[in-house]
Amino acid sequence: MIKIGYMGPKGTFSHEATLKYIKGKESEYALYEYSTIADVILAVENNLVDEAVAPIENSLEGAVNITLDTLAMDANIKIKDEIVLGIKQNLLVKSGTRPDEIECIISHPQPIGQCIKYIHLKYPNATVRFSDSTTAAAQEVAGCNGRIAAIGSMIAAKIYGLEVLEEGIQDSNNNMTRFAVISHTDSARTGNDKTSIVFSTEDKPGSLYRILDIFNLWDINMTRIESRPAKNELGRYIFFIDILGHKDDEDLKNALTMVGRKTSFMKFLGSYPVFVDREDI
Amino acid sequence: MIKIGYMGPKGTFSHEATLKYIKGKESEYALYEYSTIADVILAVENNLVDEAVAPIENSLEGAVNITLDTLAMDANIKIKDEIVLGIKQNLLVKSGTRPDEIECIISHPQPIGQCIKYIHLKYPNATVRFSDSTTAAAQEVAGCNGRIAAIGSMIAAKIYGLEVLEEGIQDSNNNMTRFAVISHTDSARTGNDKTSIVFSTEDKPGSLYRILDIFNLWDINMTRIESRPAKNELGRYIFFIDILGHKDDEDLKNALTMVGRKTSFMKFLGSYPVFVDREDI
Repeated sequence: MIKIGYMGPKGTFSHEATLKYIKGKESEYALYEYSTIADVILAVENNLVDEAVAPIENSLEGAVNITLDTLAMDANIKIKDEIVLGIKQNLLVKSGTRPDEIECIISHPQPIGQCIKYIHLKYPNATVRFSDSTTAAAQEVAGCNGRIAAIGSMIAAKIYGLEVLEEGIQDSNNNMTRFAVISHTDSARTGNDKTSIVFSTEDKPGSLYRILDIFNLWDINMTRIESRPAKNELGRYIFFIDILGHKDDEDLKNALTMVGRKTSFMKFLGSYPVFVDREDI
Repeated sequence: MIKIGYMGPKGTFSHEATLKYIKGKESEYALYEYSTIADVILAVENNLVDEAVAPIENSLEGAVNITLDTLAMDANIKIKDEIVLGIKQNLLVKSGTRPDEIECIISHPQPIGQCIKYIHLKYPNATVRFSDSTTAAAQEVAGCNGRIAAIGSMIAAKIYGLEVLEEGIQDSNNNMTRFAVISHTDSARTGNDKTSIVFSTEDKPGSLYRILDIFNLWDINMTRIESRPAKNELGRYIFFIDILGHKDDEDLKNALTMVGRKTSFMKFLGSYPVFVDREDI
């Protein structure tokens, strides 16, 4: 059995991403629930689990800083895969509740914000109440006597036995989250791979430019750059870069050797297959 | 009178930064308090105030996303100055309270986190309680009968009449926040200036590199790059860049003209003097 960790409770989007990742191989995996992102990642570092799923960026909110900071600091972990999940919110009720009976809508402030136009349009007279999590909202609806609806994931509906009154009620369909699968080793070359590194540059003008110049010289495409504070001085940063290719590709290997020489710190975070949504094929 | 907005309540670090900014010119300014960063910035846009002070990055936590996103979207605002504030936390008590009487320490979770080693070392037996803000903590201490200490700014101590039992109790001395002064116009050339822009690149490999190449060609130093999601698709970004120089410098003007041609969207955010701490001189 492969032990895999995620940030719970059951019904979170991290849980949904984990189920998407192990789809068709469920019998090979045992799932372990943690309460924070840092705990999930440290569980790999401390050998409590073999793999862990952690959100790394969202298309509306941006980078998940705690994931980046933990990846930069922890010595023995690699990214072995990525999963992209479309964030879909749904209106969940106790079985049999009719739309006109709903007096109150509850959820975590984030999903409420993601569905605010929908709520205004469809339930202008309902009161809105905040819960600690979408799971807490689903639990409350499951235990109530109707008249309350929760906003949450399809998997929360399944777990808490709720009826999905309306699917995909989020205001924007561009809400996607990318998750990293973290492990002690990264993945073998597939021919359609991505590589992640983190580095800090020397404190000289043009340092970052000279690193990007290396990728340009080797015709390597960068798909993402993210800066985080170096935490020792305002104005000093570390950079997270995703490039297309695998560390076993000759050019990419040479480029990384050069980058290693021109940076004051560099950590190889892993090579892994570019995500392809199997459900969309 | 110049109307200047900041995120309150009184005693926040935004308030402290505002006082630092207007130091020596207090009689020319009228201060207006807002409850969120977005409201502060929109107050300039809507002509409710002439200037506003908003945090833009912290040396430990990184970029303040709401400030960046609002700057990118709002059409008629510019950065006219910057202020850097060392974030110093202090232990505040009701006048006359002795250290051995303290049973409970209250503050917002962020300052508690910033002083956690200090609390463990000096007050291992005290309970820790979270408040909604450092101001709420200071108010509670002001109204209590001793035995409680708050963690907060020097200005909070002054406003709520508290005694500063110990100064500078934060675990790290590298905790600095940079604030932007936002207005309808930016600043005239001083000879030691910085310029901020935001842009999105074409969706082609190497697009960002080609922009940085322009600054390299013109010998312009970049002091900061920050990416934020473009919010229309995962993997598309907008970039915030700070460069040294003023828009009236011939080279910088030419570079920006080139950048404008090579980007799908570019917004000039302002030229303003590089911050020099007058207190340190």
